[in-house]
Amino acid sequence: MTKETTLADSYNAAEYKIAGHGPRSVQVLKDVFDSLDGSLLSDMYGKGEVIEEFQQRMADLLGKERAVFFPSGTMAQQIALRIWCEEKGLKRVAYHPLCHLEIHEENGLKELHHIESVLLADPERLITLEDVKGLQEDISCLLLELPQREIGGQLPAYEELEAISRYCREQGIRLHLDGARLLEILPYYQRTAAEVCSLFDSVYLSVYKGIGGIAGAVLAGERSFTEASKVWKRRHGGDLISLYPYIITADHYLRQRQDKMGQYYEEAKELAAQLNACRQVSTLPQTPVSSMFHVYFNVPRAQLEPILIQVQETTGVGLIAYLNETGPSTCYSEISLGDRYAGLPKERLRHSLQELDRLLGEF
Amino acid sequence: MTKETTLADSYNAAEYKIAGHGPRSVQVLKDVFDSLDGSLLSDMYGKGEVIEEFQQRMADLLGKERAVFFPSGTMAQQIALRIWCEEKGLKRVAYHPLCHLEIHEENGLKELHHIESVLLADPERLITLEDVKGLQEDISCLLLELPQREIGGQLPAYEELEAISRYCREQGIRLHLDGARLLEILPYYQRTAAEVCSLFDSVYLSVYKGIGGIAGAVLAGERSFTEASKVWKRRHGGDLISLYPYIITADHYLRQRQDKMGQYYEEAKELAAQLNACRQVSTLPQTPVSSMFHVYFNVPRAQLEPILIQVQETTGVGLIAYLNETGPSTCYSEISLGDRYAGLPKERLRHSLQELDRLLGEF
Repeated sequence: MTKETTLADSYNAAEYKIAGHGPRSVQVLKDVFDSLDGSLLSDMYGKGEVIEEFQQRMADLLGKERAVFFPSGTMAQQIALRIWCEEKGLKRVAYHPLCHLEIHEENGLKELHHIESVLLADPERLITLEDVKGLQEDISCLLLELPQREIGGQLPAYEELEAISRYCREQGIRLHLDGARLLEILPYYQRTAAEVCSLFDSVYLSVYKGIGGIAGAVLAGERSFTEASKVWKRRHGGDLISLYPYIITADHYLRQRQDKMGQYYEEAKELAAQLNACRQVSTLPQTPVSSMFHVYFNVPRAQLEPILIQVQETTGVGLIAYLNETGPSTCYSEISLGDRYAGLPKERLRHSLQELDRLLGEF
Repeated sequence: MTKETTLADSYNAAEYKIAGHGPRSVQVLKDVFDSLDGSLLSDMYGKGEVIEEFQQRMADLLGKERAVFFPSGTMAQQIALRIWCEEKGLKRVAYHPLCHLEIHEENGLKELHHIESVLLADPERLITLEDVKGLQEDISCLLLELPQREIGGQLPAYEELEAISRYCREQGIRLHLDGARLLEILPYYQRTAAEVCSLFDSVYLSVYKGIGGIAGAVLAGERSFTEASKVWKRRHGGDLISLYPYIITADHYLRQRQDKMGQYYEEAKELAAQLNACRQVSTLPQTPVSSMFHVYFNVPRAQLEPILIQVQETTGVGLIAYLNETGPSTCYSEISLGDRYAGLPKERLRHSLQELDRLLGEF
C-alpha cells in the first residue's frame, strides 16, 4: 500500500494540511448557495444587479473608475494588453520572463492578438527601474506581477515601484498590474489596494487565489478602458449569459477573507522560519512578503518523495502535495497560506517538521 | 401605474407564461446543488471526473470521438473555425448572413482570428446546396446553423442537408454544425443526434437553450480536433480552473429534459396554430419545426405594446416579454417552448388569445 502511495495521496490523506483554505470541492459553492434566496435573478450578459453591484464594489476597493468581471485572468490580461496596444498603435509589450502570459497561456497573446513580448530581467529576479530604462524598443505597456509568483512571490521595494510608475508615465508607457494576488501583498506594503493600484493604469485581480472563490477575475481601470474590455470580452467568448456562480461566491469569500490577509502573511513568515530550520530546506524568499512562498529542498526529488510520504503518513500533517524538479538534486513546491493553517495544532506541526528534519539530516 | 408598466413588467408579473422553463434565477443552480454531496471534487483546468465524464457522455450522445466543455458557444465556434482554417492553410469560411458569429460576437472571428467570412444565401432564407455550389472562392469550412434561429428556427429538408454534407466532403470543405438547439430539432427530423452529427466534421451544442442549464457549450469531433480545441480554449482564457457549476447543472437538466424535446415541439405547433388564428398575427415558420418559432405582428410596435400589456395584465398569461421592430408597422418576438407551457391551463391560454384577437381585430 505505502509503496504505491503518491505524494499527493499522502498529502490528501493527512488529517491536517499547512496550506490553502480547504479542498476544491463542491462544498465551496454549497457553503454560499445553500442559504441563499433562490429568487435572486441571474446576471444577463454582463448586466443586472448581481454583476453590477460586485463590479462597483471591486472598483471602489481598487480605487478605479470601473471594474469588469471576467471568467479568467488569462482573458482579462490579454485584453488589457490588446487595448493598450490599440491605443498606441504598437503591438509590443514588456513583462517578466516568467509572466503568466509567457508560460501558461499557450501563446494566446501572440496567436490571438499578434502582440510581441519583450522579456525584461533574468528569470530569477524582479524587474527593476534600470531594466525598464534599458528597454531597446518602444512598448505600449509594461506588465508587472505583484507578487512575482514563479520566483516565490517576491516584491520590489515600494519606492522602486513608484519610480517605475513615474518613469512609465513620463515615457507614455501604460502600466498594467497582474495583481492575481494583490490583496495578499497589502500587509507587507502597508498600503491599501487603491494606493497600490493608483500606480497602474489597469489592474487584474483573481478571485480564487487568496480570496478562495471558485473561478473568475476582475479587470479595473478608467471607464473608457473597461468599456473597451467588455467588447473584447464578448469577442473572446467570455461574455457569458450567466457568471453568477463565480460572482456570488467571489463576493462571499472576499467579505470573509479580505481582513485575514495580514494573518495569512504572519503565518507564512512563521511557517517559513520553521521550514528554514530544517536541514536541506530553504524558502524563497527567506522571509515571505505575502501569504505565499516557495520551499526548496536540496535533495533529489526521487529520494525526497518517500521521505515526505513517510512524514505525512506518520505525523498526519500534509506538508507538500507536489514537487517541481529544478535540477538533478533540487526541487521545490509552492505554499500559499489560507484558512487551514490556523486550525493546525502547533504541536503537530512542530512534530512533523522535527520528523522531516531528522530524516533529511540522515541524508 | 399601468401607464408606466413596460411590456417586460407585465410579462414578468403574469401568473403564467407560455415560453421557457422558468425564470433565470439562482434557484436553477440551487435545485441541482442543494441535494448534492459537497465532497465531490472540482474539475481542474479541464481534468477530473466531473468534466471528463460529462464530456464522454456528450461525445456518445453526439456520436463523436471526443467532446470538450466550453464556457460559451462564442468561444467554441470561433475555435472550431480556426482549427479548420489552420488545417487547410486558408483563413476563409462561409455561413449564413444572420450567423451568430456575424451579428452577435463583435467581430471576434475577424479581430482575434483574422478569418474572412463569406455570407451565403439571403438573410431571409436558408442556405441551399445551390448556394454552396455557387461559391466563388475556396473556403476551409462551411458553418450550418440548425435550426436557423434568426429566421424563426427554419430547417432544410434532411435530404438537402445530406447533399450539402456529401458535396462538402467531395470538395474538401469541412462542415461545422452550429447546433446550439440541436436536441430541439431531432423530433422533426426523426433522427438521433448522432445521425445528424455524422453529416458534420465538428459540432457545437449549447447547454442552456432547450436543456436549460446555466451557461456553457460542448464542442465535439475527432480526437485530433478536440485536442487542438483545448489548446485554443486555453489561449482564449476559457480553460477555467473550475467549470463545474455549469457542467453539473448541464448534466442534471440534460437528463431531465432530453426526452421532453418531442413534447416541446408538439406544444410549439399547437401554440403557433392558436397564434396564427389571431388577427394581425402570424408565425415563422407557419408550422414550427422545433420548439422555437417567431411570432410576427402586423401592427406598429408602439401601438401593439399597450395592447399586449392589457392582455397580459387582465388575463394573467404572459405571452410576449419583448418586441423587435422589423419596420414601421411590423414587429416580432421569439418564442421557445419549455417546461412552463405544460403548466399553463389551456382555458387560460384560450381566453388570453381571444382577448388578443379581439383587441387586434379592432385595429
